[in-house]
Amino acid sequence: MRIVNTVVFRPEGQSVRVPDGTLLSDAVAQAGIPINLPCGGQGRCGRCKVVVEKGTVKSRSTSRLSPTELEQGYALACQTTVESDLQVFIPPQEAIIHALPSEKATAETPELPLQCYWASRPAVRKFFLTMEPPSLSDNTTDFERLKRELAKQHDIRDIVADLPVLRKLARTLRASAVKGNAWQVTAVLEMRTWVQENAPPRLIDLRPGDLRGRTLGAAVDIGTTGNVVHLVDLASGHYVDTASGYNAQISCGEDVISRIIYAKKEGGLEHLQRLVVQTINGKLRELADRNKIDPHEIYAMSVAGNTTMIHLFLALDPASIRLEPYIPTVTHPLPVRASELGIDICPEASVDCLPGVGAYVGADITAGVLSSQMFKTDNLTLFIDVGTNGEIVLGNAEWLIACACSAGPAFEGAGVCSGMRATLGAIEEVWINTDTCEPTYRVIGDVRPRGICGSGLISLLAELFVTGIVDKSGHLNRTLGTPRVRDGEHGPEYVVAWAKESHGGKADIVLTEVDISNLIRAKGAIYAGFSVLTKSVGIDLADVEQVLIAGAFGKYIDVEKAIQIGLLPDMPWERFKYLGNTSVLGALTALLCEDMRREVVEIAKRMTYLELSADNRFMEEFTSALFLPHTDTTTFPSVMRLLRTRGA
Amino acid sequence: MRIVNTVVFRPEGQSVRVPDGTLLSDAVAQAGIPINLPCGGQGRCGRCKVVVEKGTVKSRSTSRLSPTELEQGYALACQTTVESDLQVFIPPQEAIIHALPSEKATAETPELPLQCYWASRPAVRKFFLTMEPPSLSDNTTDFERLKRELAKQHDIRDIVADLPVLRKLARTLRASAVKGNAWQVTAVLEMRTWVQENAPPRLIDLRPGDLRGRTLGAAVDIGTTGNVVHLVDLASGHYVDTASGYNAQISCGEDVISRIIYAKKEGGLEHLQRLVVQTINGKLRELADRNKIDPHEIYAMSVAGNTTMIHLFLALDPASIRLEPYIPTVTHPLPVRASELGIDICPEASVDCLPGVGAYVGADITAGVLSSQMFKTDNLTLFIDVGTNGEIVLGNAEWLIACACSAGPAFEGAGVCSGMRATLGAIEEVWINTDTCEPTYRVIGDVRPRGICGSGLISLLAELFVTGIVDKSGHLNRTLGTPRVRDGEHGPEYVVAWAKESHGGKADIVLTEVDISNLIRAKGAIYAGFSVLTKSVGIDLADVEQVLIAGAFGKYIDVEKAIQIGLLPDMPWERFKYLGNTSVLGALTALLCEDMRREVVEIAKRMTYLELSADNRFMEEFTSALFLPHTDTTTFPSVMRLLRTRGA
Repeated sequence: MRIVNTVVFRPEGQSVRVPDGTLLSDAVAQAGIPINLPCGGQGRCGRCKVVVEKGTVKSRSTSRLSPTELEQGYALACQTTVESDLQVFIPPQEAIIHALPSEKATAETPELPLQCYWASRPAVRKFFLTMEPPSLSDNTTDFERLKRELAKQHDIRDIVADLPVLRKLARTLRASAVKGNAWQVTAVLEMRTWVQENAPPRLIDLRPGDLRGRTLGAAVDIGTTGNVVHLVDLASGHYVDTASGYNAQISCGEDVISRIIYAKKEGGLEHLQRLVVQTINGKLRELADRNKIDPHEIYAMSVAGNTTMIHLFLALDPASIRLEPYIPTVTHPLPVRASELGIDICPEASVDCLPGVGAYVGADITAGVLSSQMFKTDNLTLFIDVGTNGEIVLGNAEWLIACACSAGPAFEGAGVCSGMRATLGAIEEVWINTDTCEPTYRVIGDVRPRGICGSGLISLLAELFVTGIVDKSGHLNRTLGTPRVRDGEHGPEYVVAWAKESHGGKADIVLTEVDISNLIRAKGAIYAGFSVLTKSVGIDLADVEQVLIAGAFGKYIDVEKAIQIGLLPDMPWERFKYLGNTSVLGALTALLCEDMRREVVEIAKRMTYLELSADNRFMEEFTSALFLPHTDTTTFPSVMRLLRTRGA
Repeated sequence: MRIVNTVVFRPEGQSVRVPDGTLLSDAVAQAGIPINLPCGGQGRCGRCKVVVEKGTVKSRSTSRLSPTELEQGYALACQTTVESDLQVFIPPQEAIIHALPSEKATAETPELPLQCYWASRPAVRKFFLTMEPPSLSDNTTDFERLKRELAKQHDIRDIVADLPVLRKLARTLRASAVKGNAWQVTAVLEMRTWVQENAPPRLIDLRPGDLRGRTLGAAVDIGTTGNVVHLVDLASGHYVDTASGYNAQISCGEDVISRIIYAKKEGGLEHLQRLVVQTINGKLRELADRNKIDPHEIYAMSVAGNTTMIHLFLALDPASIRLEPYIPTVTHPLPVRASELGIDICPEASVDCLPGVGAYVGADITAGVLSSQMFKTDNLTLFIDVGTNGEIVLGNAEWLIACACSAGPAFEGAGVCSGMRATLGAIEEVWINTDTCEPTYRVIGDVRPRGICGSGLISLLAELFVTGIVDKSGHLNRTLGTPRVRDGEHGPEYVVAWAKESHGGKADIVLTEVDISNLIRAKGAIYAGFSVLTKSVGIDLADVEQVLIAGAFGKYIDVEKAIQIGLLPDMPWERFKYLGNTSVLGALTALLCEDMRREVVEIAKRMTYLELSADNRFMEEFTSALFLPHTDTTTFPSVMRLLRTRGA
């Protein structure tokens, strides 16, 4: 018999009853208290720290807890089991979801590809019908009558309709009677030509009256970190509005691997699916409220995202994506009814996930290639999407080859001591005085700094390197006689901001040698990706005619600094182009045009996927790239010139 | 503000709290007490009688209640509203659902059309696959691998799969590994060719191991009164088993009109849908238990039934079927996933409802024409399905014309004083001595009689007529000096069994003049149908070369007696053929063969529907048929000869 224990949570006093051996993190969840598990409950990140104030627990792991913390009763909720009645204190959680995005990080009116080389040809269209009601001499069924009139008035033939639409057909038609008894309705038809040639048009909604005018559709990017939803009018191709925010799955893991691990838990996959659906529904509600529309009037949704995000969105088992040989269940699922996923738009509308290429080159990348028009250009193009992972595509209208580098989330501020996302209080740019070693920095929102975000880390590392504070192997120079370089709790570190200047005023904001090593590994992985990809097709990296930088993060990279640390190849700055979130733009492109939807299938088909983990050259290139800017300094001539100027 | 009252139900003491004005029948339902509303809650049938023992109620209607009953506090639950706290006694309900069907009424091994002119070609087939698991050098997705191997090993191309199947794909494949790591699975594919030319095969299940062998399918007839489920092996065409029983919707109305009225109640349609699904699931469980199978191994279901039953099964609004001009929502819905309807077979299997012709000539009739092969014969054929309604088809391989006569459920024992269904205790055949007017009868189950079923009523009326106890206009001859003919509570009546011989020993079993009038109207409606149908195509009824009698009821009609009362046309007995439940046989035929499934669509298309309510000839023919056997005695020569012999 299992003993049932009462666990009381402070400060709010919630309590739950759980059997012996229950994970404390599960008990917390059961009490409905939000707790962050950025590593997915592996005991790696230390963010689920709680204080066991009374009672007995067992802890599998105490990594990330200092001896002092252990003494004070701290435990990792994800690694600790309940063994008696308990009183547990839950420290304030980092409000990931509710963090205020900076002006920069919120979506601006996107550069929509609406004035484009392709003509708008959406899958969903509205048709207005006036028809005579039935009589004894014309007693065909409601559905046949509708079919007959669609054929007669609009030359649309052989439509089909699913049960939920048929269920309201009789009532809607009879409610639509106007003066003189004629029925007047608006039929919403989905004509999805790319799924199957000659597929019959599908009736997804029928409403009384003339409701032509705009036909709303939504394009969605499901990022590991952030989600974006664009609302557009399919009929006119006009942009309506955008909403964006964090993916609520973050509380279950910050990167795809952590989420896949979380999905293995009992009910974990379903929980993750619910979280992302809730995130999207929240954005849809926001858009609906702001634009005074009924979300059920949204009749189509296109979705892009990496392969794991798409699996989690569809509740497909992602386990084998993580394990060699890295196999997804599917990279091109068929469109799914919104009601089947719980997406709160017209229940019969299709939610259409764009096709990906493999486990680590997903629909976000094919969408990027689509919206960037890379697949149409004659110029040799390098496309980089640096998000939580780094995906790279090389090619042009003739050929496309892609790879993924597990850069890790260092550039998103994770795995870095004072790292944080690009939100209020993040240091986003740093300059260091070569003589004094003193930094100047800019903070998002012009407030006291809380930490350093990705662009700040690149900027800081570049400055530390070109000023000689950090050497090419990433070690801090401790002979400079500045208090900024010192021995900290985690070894040598550089102090960017003193506690007294910081938000809260309690802790210095630092970059440690361990952080630097993490950043170098991350940039090294991406640069190795470039190298292997170009070499595998016998091209020199210098021959690349344009570099397209995608991803919300990429938008804010300072190219100069990124080249200085060897993250981007050393070439004239004008060859670099920022595209922003090409994933959601690709989803939007496919949403607005069936021809482009078909095109993205072709892109996915013709993109060769290079699996780096099976490629010995990658380890070699990676090792060579673990220096600032690179072992082979001849590949970074502009950086070497700068170092010489500065007398390094 | 509405006042909330407590209603306590005796004898079991359940109680509910309901506001003023709540229908007592709704309060009873809320208390979870089963109560019969055979007329759908219209106050017509009087079966929902309850006794209001304490408190105040308001009654809209007290029809069907005698002055004595009113004095005793009886009220019709469906016509009475709660106006104060109440104590209500619920009398024992007639256990309609649990009535024991007689040997005759239970399904025997059906005469399956398995040895037929058409070749078995079911939509669902199983395919066994052995395949190499993925590796870094062969890292295609699970689904693409499956597609590739189906193409390579079985030449099946471009399959599609819905989410629920994709969700278990990764796990199933990896669980299927055998020695040497090869994956071995059985794929279940639906290749439904009639819905759309070149529709892609749909993966509806995937299981580890070799599970070829039998591929189960179910054919279902949803009758207004009874449901039948046949289980067959689609692979071999072999019959497996049958289960049958009453449609649980009976508690909400005995005929289609009552059910349509019930469906208008708040939640009524959903309740009716649940009831029929529960009925079918109960039968499936019974079949599964008896044959030691998992119901999820049933991979296809075909359904026949009248248009109202199909609407209720799919939860389509049936309201306008009842109202002129009698318009169904649809007569040929697309196949629906079992999971969407709550049918407990493989969740992704299709439930395929056969096509009907109109509001009152449904899929039960097209299925009947299919299984009877009437649509292939050169002989002029009259097809009759006498159930709760009477549907008639006339034609041959060249043409088909159909009509429906609202005969009412008199032949099923409803609307007749001592009427009952063909279950234990029903008088099913009667002989009357011309000299003594004394009857002899046979009872189902050889027990004491409880009432008279349809075949008994036909037999009794015929005997009363040919012995001169009843005249041609349906009046009892009260000059015969027999105690069997007397004045009863409801006017003149004939006593078939005295109380002392009856079950319970309390009440005589009688046939009243009102009953006789109801029976004459019912047979008159059907005969008028024959007449109008033949006349409308310029044919004499005597030219009909065969008469096919369908329906569970039809199977037990005594042709001689049915001719004597003018229910069937007077022609040589050998022209009549009993086919049993042709509706379920048609569903079975379509289930086993895609060509036949296509054929039934053609049958529905080419069948002309004659709307009798719009036809003046029908009222004329009906009036002429309101005599025994008919006004025009020349059309019943054999009966007239018999009457002359008997000296009538």
